[in-house]
Formats: sequence, structure tokens, C-alpha cells
Amino acid sequence: MFEPVEIAHDIDKDSFEERLPKLRTDLLEAQFSLLEAKKFPVILIVAGMEGAGVVDALTHASTVLDTRYVTTFALDAPTDEESGRPRMWRYWRVLPPRGEMGVYVGSWYTTPLTDRILDESRTTEFEQELKTINRFEAMLAAEGALILKFWLHIGKKEQAKRLKKLDSDARTRWRVEESPWGGTKRYRQVERAAGQMMTATHTDHAPWIAVNAENPYYRGLTVGRTLLNAIQSRLSQADQAKPISVPANIPAVHDRTVLMDLDLSLNLDKSDYREQLAKYQDRLNELLWKKKFNKHSLVLVFEGNDAAGKGGSIRRVTEFLDPRRYRVNQFAAPTDEEKAQPYLWRFWRRLPVRKHIAFFDRSWYGRVLVERVEGFCSEADWRRAYGEINEFEKEMTDAGVIVIKFWLAIDKDEQQARFRAREETGYKRYKITDEDWRNREKWDDYAAAVCDMVNATGTRLSPWILVEANDKYFARVKVLRTLCEHIEKQLEGKKSKS
Amino acid sequence: MFEPVEIAHDIDKDSFEERLPKLRTDLLEAQFSLLEAKKFPVILIVAGMEGAGVVDALTHASTVLDTRYVTTFALDAPTDEESGRPRMWRYWRVLPPRGEMGVYVGSWYTTPLTDRILDESRTTEFEQELKTINRFEAMLAAEGALILKFWLHIGKKEQAKRLKKLDSDARTRWRVEESPWGGTKRYRQVERAAGQMMTATHTDHAPWIAVNAENPYYRGLTVGRTLLNAIQSRLSQADQAKPISVPANIPAVHDRTVLMDLDLSLNLDKSDYREQLAKYQDRLNELLWKKKFNKHSLVLVFEGNDAAGKGGSIRRVTEFLDPRRYRVNQFAAPTDEEKAQPYLWRFWRRLPVRKHIAFFDRSWYGRVLVERVEGFCSEADWRRAYGEINEFEKEMTDAGVIVIKFWLAIDKDEQQARFRAREETGYKRYKITDEDWRNREKWDDYAAAVCDMVNATGTRLSPWILVEANDKYFARVKVLRTLCEHIEKQLEGKKSKS
Repeated sequence: MFEPVEIAHDIDKDSFEERLPKLRTDLLEAQFSLLEAKKFPVILIVAGMEGAGVVDALTHASTVLDTRYVTTFALDAPTDEESGRPRMWRYWRVLPPRGEMGVYVGSWYTTPLTDRILDESRTTEFEQELKTINRFEAMLAAEGALILKFWLHIGKKEQAKRLKKLDSDARTRWRVEESPWGGTKRYRQVERAAGQMMTATHTDHAPWIAVNAENPYYRGLTVGRTLLNAIQSRLSQADQAKPISVPANIPAVHDRTVLMDLDLSLNLDKSDYREQLAKYQDRLNELLWKKKFNKHSLVLVFEGNDAAGKGGSIRRVTEFLDPRRYRVNQFAAPTDEEKAQPYLWRFWRRLPVRKHIAFFDRSWYGRVLVERVEGFCSEADWRRAYGEINEFEKEMTDAGVIVIKFWLAIDKDEQQARFRAREETGYKRYKITDEDWRNREKWDDYAAAVCDMVNATGTRLSPWILVEANDKYFARVKVLRTLCEHIEKQLEGKKSKS
Repeated sequence: MFEPVEIAHDIDKDSFEERLPKLRTDLLEAQFSLLEAKKFPVILIVAGMEGAGVVDALTHASTVLDTRYVTTFALDAPTDEESGRPRMWRYWRVLPPRGEMGVYVGSWYTTPLTDRILDESRTTEFEQELKTINRFEAMLAAEGALILKFWLHIGKKEQAKRLKKLDSDARTRWRVEESPWGGTKRYRQVERAAGQMMTATHTDHAPWIAVNAENPYYRGLTVGRTLLNAIQSRLSQADQAKPISVPANIPAVHDRTVLMDLDLSLNLDKSDYREQLAKYQDRLNELLWKKKFNKHSLVLVFEGNDAAGKGGSIRRVTEFLDPRRYRVNQFAAPTDEEKAQPYLWRFWRRLPVRKHIAFFDRSWYGRVLVERVEGFCSEADWRRAYGEINEFEKEMTDAGVIVIKFWLAIDKDEQQARFRAREETGYKRYKITDEDWRNREKWDDYAAAVCDMVNATGTRLSPWILVEANDKYFARVKVLRTLCEHIEKQLEGKKSKS
């Protein structure tokens, strides 16, 4: 990935200071090229033994880089907005946009590593956490990110010496007092856990670089030069934004009958509709006011054919909900802050905090529907999206988010009738555009995409509910009923734990 | 501000449904013109008696508007990220960008109003809170916002009837149970407090519109038509973004000697520097680890002549701080999300949560410095900024934020010497641009702007510290020393309360 950095391990202060100005100039130049290209972000993780100089890395970065384009992040205790959402939410919050750099002292590795060091029996969880990280970094890399991870290493003797020095200075004593790993006492445990971590998460697209940090001059030059080489090398690549390809995650056997099996003639008469709607609206309110729900949040995805009645269904769900607790998210064109991030970023941004409900009127599934069918992204992009979406939703359900996804299906004739009716009604004209008519021409392509999507991303914990929606009454009641059933099941499932 | 809306108070369902389609079409059209013009946001506040239909307003808005461009906000208990910051922070978070609309059910009025209803002796505080709101809305309006505030009113008898009905339906019972004002029991108190609120905060640029809400059809049409007229009328105005002018807030007598009085020959030798720097870095760490500081946060503003040494001073302050607790904010070109908001928005966004420290390397003072001198904003804009900035900082100090602002002053010769030196040093060349040389030509204009700024915005609680910075050693020590002294004073000042 980058040329080896050749610096003598025993480099002295004079040689360091001689070489520093050029390194600074080169790094600033690289940073400006990065900013100009706006093709990819740089993610720099610095971790290491206590006393190895991890904290100094931040100070150092601020002296050699133009900090207007650098986000720094040091891991503090999570706020309740953070702890009330999936674990990775707080990191998504601070991802650098394309063209900029993020320096992480304390990162997604910190908590898993610390938990493992303090409890070495925590093997399975640790391995799983590292796998989650691998998938996260693969996604970032596939979205273009240049990821570098440094592990600063020092020997036990050197560590003892450094910690003693830190402890003797009032200005740095807190570093020793706040030490989560307990200094030299757990030196071996740290070494073991870090070794396992690096082995399990070292990849071509997100390599670990172990740096001997006994000599601070060597440490500084090595980190700086490695970073510089990596940026320069990436900038010189032809297609800067697509460094890795991820294996397709779409099922080998395409079962494209799921939509065909639907009985779109299902319907409900008005009085049954009224009665059942009221019953399930009532039931939903009851469920959401249960104490048990306080440990959860609710994510409702609405997808469907154009004019299938998503908006109307959502309104029947929200009709009697406390407006303080829900938010309906629709998605207009992405802002430039959103465009400069991985495609899932704008959805992460809208995840509800505990006890709250987020509706997604269209969602991250756009990637494998409209973007796939219309060719707005490459085949490699939408193919990897199935796995990324599964991972995204798994992170939600792991965190107690109740996820349910509705596909509202109508047939081609019903759609045509609704389009015509909309064109005739003044205020509904805005809901129908030439694009809607054009999309109809690709009916079969969309149907195939929907079948692949349902097959590849429907799980027990975040199921796809296919809703026969030719009859609006039937559709609305089915949405509310299955929603209540799913919430009930999830709240019961947690009974043993709470 | 808008033509009177003429609708019969006893309008029936049939007439309502006859008029609704046209209203919807017109509102959607107005919304798209608003979006296309991208000149101003619309802020719609809906408040009213319990049972008057405030909650329904959200549902209603979602049926008649294109909700992709509408933010809705209902007031829930503050999260710790919100309660750890100035009171208005949570509202700044949800301001609609230019071209879009925000519908607030529960707004900045809710808490003051509820507090007053539950405790009628709370007069002074209530009046002060309303004054703060007036200044906030004046600022929003001056930045272009179209603000409409509806108060939905019903009689006591009608209220009793409606609350009984809500209580009898399982789906709406929570509205009665969660009622913060206690229903008809406090009808008169609500009426009194709301009356006072409307009188005190009714302005041309943010009017209250009282709506008789006994008839839901009348209520719906009135709110819709009033909103429509207001948007159309604003869209037809020549200069859509500048609806009001605020009286100048700059002191009548310009004291422009503050900079001249500085003795820029002040200096420190290296050994004194080292000793004192260590002493105050130590002291600062001590102060920030005090338990008392946990109720506070710290905002440090650094402004100064180009090349005055802001970055170097900040690094001396952060050198031994826990990186988890501070963040240095520098400001590159605003993103489009930032450009679509009032100029203070990007700074509100970066305010630290309790226990944390935010450095601002350049800040909101850009408005009255570079924007004033270079003519990047109108004279009316920078003149009103002094008051807005004072209000902004008062909201911080009221919330326990310790605010201190440094002006690093060097003289013209020293600046020239530093510019030359930068041009000669490779990695520092990036810090010096043609713009820096051009700014020098306006030295006297900048000096006048600095004097006005210091006079108009320096207060006991958020003071300006003028730092003689020709000698870097002297400057850095003065920054650290005055910072420590100010924090000490603020922590002591709160002793009696904590």
C-alpha cells in the first residue's frame, strides 16, 4: 500500500529537527491536494501502550497540519444521546467528510480493547466486536476512505519510566490517574489483547502499522512519513474513490416470486376498516407507553411502488401518537455535508434515541432500488450494499432498536389509475411527475430489485412485511397489525433479560 | 403584514371540504416557490389551550405540505447534551434552513409559559424570558426568517367537553394524562399567562395570531390561509431577506484608544517564560479537574492581528489538557447547511457540553471585524451584530459557560517581520497569502473595528483580554494567567449557590 519508511530507530533530536520542516511542508501540500480533490477522507487512528505518546499525537497533528480541515476525536464517556443509540452512532457523528482528515485518539477500538484487557475471558465478544469493526472499515474503504491505524509500542521498562515521569509532573499526573488499563500492572494483558486486535483487523484497506515508540523522534517521523506516503500514493491513483471491491452479498439463487405470490385482491370494507384501525391504533399506543418500551426505540421503513400509499399509511400510524416521540423522515436531495459522507450517513444521522420513533418514508434501500435500477451507482456499489445494510440494521437491533420494514405493493393497473386520479386532483398533481411515468416503464426491473432486496435483507429481527396495497383500507390495517405484533414479540423476547 | 383572512366562524364541514383542495394546491405552490427562492425560512409556532387542537396541527401540516421540506418539532424532555448547554441550543438545532419550513408544536415559549402557569408568582423571570425570546426572534427576522405564531383559543366549557372526549378514547387518553397544565383546573391561569406572553412578544416581524379554535374547520382554514398569505406576500417583496432593521447597538461615543494604550514592549525572558508557563498550565489543569468545574463549560475565543500568534497560544493552553475534554474549532468556508442558517448557527453548533472546553480560533466576531471592514455584510448587519453577540454570550454565561475572549495585538512592524519570516520558512509559507498583505493595507480600519468591538462586547462575565503579543513569551503567559484568574473568579462566584 505504501513504500516502507526508512528511518533509523536511534535518530537523534538534531536529525529530527533537520528533517521536520520538509515533512511539514510535504504534509501541508498533501493536505491541500486532498482537499482540492475532495475524493476521499483520511481516517487516522492512533492507539498504543500507555505512556507511548498517544495523547501527544493530537498535539503533534495540530502543529504539522492545517487544522481547519482536521477533525480530532478523543473518546469520552458517551452522552445519553449516544448511549441511547447503536454503539457506532457516536463515531458516525465525527467521520471526516471527503477531502478532510479525522485523527482519532480513542476510536471504535478503545472500548472493545479495554473490556478485553480488564477481563481476558471475554474472548467471543471481543472477536465479534472486531468482526463488526472489520465490516465497518470495509464499508468506509469501499466508500473511498483512506484508513491508517498506528499502534505505538514501548517496552515494559520504558513504560514504567515514562509513567513515573508523567506522575511526577502536576500537569500530566491525570494521565496516570485516569489510566484505564492500570499502567505496567497489566502490560502483558495489553500486549496480548492488542496483538489479537491487530491480527484480526489488519487488512489491505485498513492496515495496522506498529511503531516502535521508545524514541519520540523516530515515532513522530514514522507516523508523519507513513501518513504522507499513503496520501500521496492514493492521490496518484487513477480512480481515487474506489480502492477496494467487496464480494457480492446477494443470494446466489434468486427467488423472484415473492411479489407474484401476493394476493392483491385482498380488501376490507369501511366498517371493518374503521373498527380494526381503531383497535390497532389503540394497541400501538398501549405498547409504546409500556415501561418495557423505554429500553427500545422504533425504526419504521416504508418503501413501495409509487402511489402505493406510503404517506397515507404513515399518517394512520402517527395519528394518535405523541408528537414529542416520533419523527417522520423524508429525504430531499442530499446536502453537501451529506454528499461528502458514505451513503448511509444521512440515515445514521436520523436514528431515533431510546424511547423514540423514526419513520423513514423511503430509506437506505434506495441504494438497491432506484440507484440500482437507474444506474445511479455502480453494480459493485449496490451489490455490496446488501451486506452493509444488514450490518447497519444488525447494529440497530443489537442496541435494542425495533426495526420493521414495509413494502407496499400495488399492481400496474392500480398504479395507472392512481396516477390518473392524481393528475386530476389539484393538490395531488404535485405528487406525480414525468419521472413517475418513466419509472413505470422499468416495472419489471424494479420488481426484480425488490425481490432481491427482500431475499437478501429480510431477517427475523428486521423483517420485510409485504403489504397488499391495492386496497388502501386493507393495507393500512395490515401495516398497523403487523407492526403491533412485531413490537409485542420484541418486547416479550426481552422479558427474560429485563 | 398580511391581508385579513375572512372565514365565517361557523363554517361547516361541506364548505370546508370545498375550500380545502384549493388551499392545499396554493400552499404546495407557495412551498415550492419558497424552496426555489431559498431566500428565507418559515417558522411556524402553534400553541394554544389544552384541547384546542395544537397536536392536530402537526398531523394537519403533514397532509397539506410537502413534508420533505418541513421540519417538525415537539418539545420533549431535554437530553443531557441539551441540558448541558445554553437553553436555546436545542432550538438552534432544529431551525429550518432557508427555503424550508419549521413547524413547532412546543417551542421556546413552552417552558417559560408552563413555569408561569404553575407558579404565577414567577413574574420577573417570565418577563425576562420573554425579552430573551424577543431578541432571539428579532435576530431570526433580521436574518430573513418569516415567523408566524398561532394561539389556538377555546372557551372553558368547550375545553371541558373536548378533554372528556379525549379521555374517553384509549388512543388519546395520554394527552389528558400527560397534560402539563392540568386541564380546566388552571384555565384562567393559562389564559392570563398566554395573554401576557402574547402582549409582550407580539411584534411586526413575529406576530401572534389568536385563532378561535372552537370550530375545527375555521381553525384549519384560518391557519392555512394566514400562512399562505404571509408566504406569498413575502415572496413578492423585492428584498426578501431583509424584512426588518434593528437599531444600532454600537456605543455612541467611540473610545478608540484601547489599542493605543497597550505597551507592546512588554516581554519575558526564556527562563521566566518556562517557569511561569509551567506554573499556569499546572494551575489550569488543577482548576479544570475541580469538582466545581463540572457544572460549567469553557469557551475561549482567540482573535488577533494576522500572525499575532493565536495558534501558538492555543497550543500552550491545550498542551497538558485531557484531549477528551477539549476541541479546537477553526472555521473553513461554511458548508451549504451553514450558509442556509443565521450566521451564528455554525458557532452554536460547536458549543461545548458541560465539563468540556471549546477553543474558537477566530469566531463569531468575524462579523464585526473582517465582514465589516471588507464589506462582506451590510452596515445594518454588522451594527446589529453587537447586540446579537452580547445576547449570545449572555445565554452562555447564564447557563454556566465560562467565556473569555483574547485579542492578541502586535504592531505593524512586528507583523511585517513575521510575514517575511513565514515566507522564508517552507512549511509556514502556507500561513501567508496575498490576502494577508492586503489586509495590512486596512490596518487602521481594522484597529477601529477592534476598538468598537471591545467597547461594545466586553463585559464583566465575558471579558475581552487585550494581550500585548509582540513578545510571544509574554503573550502566552498572559493568556494562561488571565485565563486561570477568570476561571477562578467564576468558580468562586458560584460558591454561594453550589
